[in-house]
Amino acid sequence: MISINGGVCAAKGFMAASYAAEIRKKGRDDMAMIFSKEPCTVAGTFTSNVVKAAPVMWDKNIVSSGKPVHAVVVNSGIANACTGKEGMDACKAEAKCVAEHFGDTFSAESVLVASTGVIGMQLPVDKMLNAISEMIPLLESDEAHATSASKAIMTTDTVNKEFAVEFELDGKKVHIGGMTKGSGMIHPRMCTMLCFLTTDVAISKELLQKALSEDIVDTFNMISVDGDTSTNDTCVILANGTAGNKEIIDDDEDFETFRSALHQVNATLATRMAADGEGASHLFTAKVVGARNKDQARTLARSVVSSTLTKAAIYGRDANWGRILCAMGYSGAQFDPEKVDLYFVNDIGKIAVYKQGVPLDFDEDFAAEILGYQEVTALIEMNEGVETATAWGCDLTHEYVDINAEYRT
Amino acid sequence: MISINGGVCAAKGFMAASYAAEIRKKGRDDMAMIFSKEPCTVAGTFTSNVVKAAPVMWDKNIVSSGKPVHAVVVNSGIANACTGKEGMDACKAEAKCVAEHFGDTFSAESVLVASTGVIGMQLPVDKMLNAISEMIPLLESDEAHATSASKAIMTTDTVNKEFAVEFELDGKKVHIGGMTKGSGMIHPRMCTMLCFLTTDVAISKELLQKALSEDIVDTFNMISVDGDTSTNDTCVILANGTAGNKEIIDDDEDFETFRSALHQVNATLATRMAADGEGASHLFTAKVVGARNKDQARTLARSVVSSTLTKAAIYGRDANWGRILCAMGYSGAQFDPEKVDLYFVNDIGKIAVYKQGVPLDFDEDFAAEILGYQEVTALIEMNEGVETATAWGCDLTHEYVDINAEYRT
Repeated sequence: MISINGGVCAAKGFMAASYAAEIRKKGRDDMAMIFSKEPCTVAGTFTSNVVKAAPVMWDKNIVSSGKPVHAVVVNSGIANACTGKEGMDACKAEAKCVAEHFGDTFSAESVLVASTGVIGMQLPVDKMLNAISEMIPLLESDEAHATSASKAIMTTDTVNKEFAVEFELDGKKVHIGGMTKGSGMIHPRMCTMLCFLTTDVAISKELLQKALSEDIVDTFNMISVDGDTSTNDTCVILANGTAGNKEIIDDDEDFETFRSALHQVNATLATRMAADGEGASHLFTAKVVGARNKDQARTLARSVVSSTLTKAAIYGRDANWGRILCAMGYSGAQFDPEKVDLYFVNDIGKIAVYKQGVPLDFDEDFAAEILGYQEVTALIEMNEGVETATAWGCDLTHEYVDINAEYRT
Repeated sequence: MISINGGVCAAKGFMAASYAAEIRKKGRDDMAMIFSKEPCTVAGTFTSNVVKAAPVMWDKNIVSSGKPVHAVVVNSGIANACTGKEGMDACKAEAKCVAEHFGDTFSAESVLVASTGVIGMQLPVDKMLNAISEMIPLLESDEAHATSASKAIMTTDTVNKEFAVEFELDGKKVHIGGMTKGSGMIHPRMCTMLCFLTTDVAISKELLQKALSEDIVDTFNMISVDGDTSTNDTCVILANGTAGNKEIIDDDEDFETFRSALHQVNATLATRMAADGEGASHLFTAKVVGARNKDQARTLARSVVSSTLTKAAIYGRDANWGRILCAMGYSGAQFDPEKVDLYFVNDIGKIAVYKQGVPLDFDEDFAAEILGYQEVTALIEMNEGVETATAWGCDLTHEYVDINAEYRT
C-alpha cells in the first residue's frame, strides 16, 4: 500500500469541482461536488446528536434505502441545522437540481447533500441552485479539482485535509481517497464531521458499511476538539467498482486488505483534523496501553484528550500530569490508579512523571522542552492487560476563544 | 427564614480560624479550621472520580463509620491527590495533631481533613502540623473568623463564598451556615467541590445525610465550570444539636423546614461558585421548563452550561442559540427539537430566538445588550410536560486559558 495524491479523485471514475456561491462570504469557493458516472454503492455514519441537521436526515434516508448514489453536493457557511421544513426543502431542491442537469438519468434520491457552518440560518437556495448549474460543467477527475473541493468545504479549518492510498486487490490496482473538514464542534460520536471517501473497489454494500462503521470507532470517534458533538457529523464512502476487482462479498482476505487501507485513510484524516482543531498549537495524543479491555482503553484515552484543564496545560507547556489522571478518573472507566505509569513522549524525548501511585521527581525543564514541540503524546501504561487505544485532540488556546466568541459575526 | 452573616460560625457552638502555613505561597492564609466542642453528627458527599484524593478517602471512612466529628482542617495550595501512602499518612498526621492538642478528648477519627490545589505534590507536613498548633488557640466563634476561614480555602477563586440562614424549628431559633470554594475543575458528580456546612439543629445522622444527598442533585451537581470532575470534591455538614430543638428523627414537617433552609444555603453557594468560575465574566444559567421528567430537565440544563462552544459565545455576547440546541441534542436526553422554544432572559429583558423547529428573526442589537449583562439565562421551554431544572455555569474567556495554561508555575 502506498499513499498517493489526488484526494477524492484518486479512485477511478470520480470527478470533483468547486464554486463560489457566496453563501455567507465572498472571495472563496464555498460549494463542492463529487460525481461518479457509474452508480456507487454507499455506506455512511452520521451524528448521534438528537438534533440532526436537514442534510443528515436527507442522506440517512438515502443510505438506508440501498439505492445507488451518483453525486455529493456540499456547502460551507451555513449548517442547515435547526431549520425545520424549509431546511429539508433546500436539500431536496439541491438534489433535484443535480439530477435535472444530468437529464434525470438518475433521481434526486441518488444525490447526497451536506452542509457545515452556522446553525439556525436558512440556506440561500437560489444562489446555491445557480452555483450547482455553474459547477457541474467544471467537474474534472484530477488532483487540482480534488484539492479545490477539499478547500471549498473548510470553515475555521486552517488547512485542507485530503489523503489517498493505492493498493492491490485481485491483481488490480485499486484506490481509496478522501477529504474531510472539521475544526470546531468536534467530538464525534458514532460518526464524524464531514468526511467524503471515494473508492473504485467493487464491494458489497453490506461489507462497505461494516468496514466503515467498525473503523470509525478507532479513528474519527477517537478525536475531540471541544467536546461538542455536532448536529451535522457525516461520513460517507462511495464505491463505484470501476477498478475491476472481483467484488468483495465475503469477510475474506481481500476484505481485510480493504479494511486496512481504509483505516490508513481514516486515521490520517482524523489526526489531521485534531491537529487543525480551532486555535490549536499542539496535536495532543493520548495513548493507553496495557488496558484490561478495548472499551476501557478507548474511554480513558478519549477522556484525557477531551479534558479542558489538560488541554490548557498542554498549551502552557505545563507537565501538569495530575489533570490527566483526574480525567481518567472521571471518564467512567474503572481502573486502579495505583497501577498506572504516566509518560510524556515525542520526537524530542520521553519523560516519566508518575509510577504506580507515586509522583516522580522529574526534570521540569526537559518536560517543558518536550511539551514545546508541536506534537506530544501522553503515554499511559495501565499495567492491567494487553489492550491499547489512541485518541487525538489539541490544546485549548486563546485563539480558540477568539474564534468562538464571535463566530457568527 | 432570613439570611444572616456569620458563615460557618452562624450556627451556635462552631468556631473557626485560619493560618498562613506557606504551603505553596507566602503572604496569605492557606489553612483553615472549623471546630465544635460538642460532638457533631456528620453527613457528606464526595467525588465520584475513580482517582480519589487522600483526604477524600480519610473523610469517607469517618462519615461512613458513624462516629461523631469535632473538627475539620482544610488547606489550599496542594490537593494531596495521586500521592499514594505518603498522602494518607499526611491526613492521619493532621488529624492526630488536632486530637493531641485537645488532650485526646476525642480521637483522630473525629477530625475531617480536606485539601485543594495542585494534584500530584506531597503536602509539607511539618509546616502544616506547626500551623495547626498555632491555629487552634486562634479559634473564635465570630463572623470575622468565619470569613477568614472562607478566604483561606480559596485557590483561583476571586471572592470568598459564605452564606447562612436563621429559621425556627420547634419554637427554637436554629441556623445553617456554610463556606465553599471552587473556581476550576468544577463539574461535580454525586458531590461538589469543597463545601463545609454547619448547623446547630439536632437531627439524626440518617436524615442529615438524606437532606444533603437529595439537595445536592439540584444544587452543587448542577454547576459546571469546565467539565472536569475533581479528585477532591467534598461536601460535609456538621450538626452539633446546640440549638435545643427536639431532634429531627422523622421525615416530618420539621425535616421539610430543615431541607428547605439547607436548599437555600446550597443553592446560594452553588450559584456563587458558578459566577466565580475561573476567568468568568458571566454567570450563565440554563433553565429548562415544560420537561417530560426531572432527569430529562437536569440532563438538558447541565449539558447547555457545560458546552464549550456555548460558553465561548456567551463570552462574545453572541446570541448563537444553535449551539444551545446542539448541546441539548448531544446531552443523552431524548426530546423533540421541533417542540422547543428558546429565549435569552435577564434583568435587561427577554428575547425569543427559536420557536418549535423554526429560527426566529430577532433584534441582534437587543440580544447583544441582554448578553452584555453579567448574568444571563437561557430559558428553554420543552413543551413536553411540567418538570423543570436549572443549571449554572459561566463563560469561557481568555482569562480561563491564562489561569490554566500555567497553573502550577
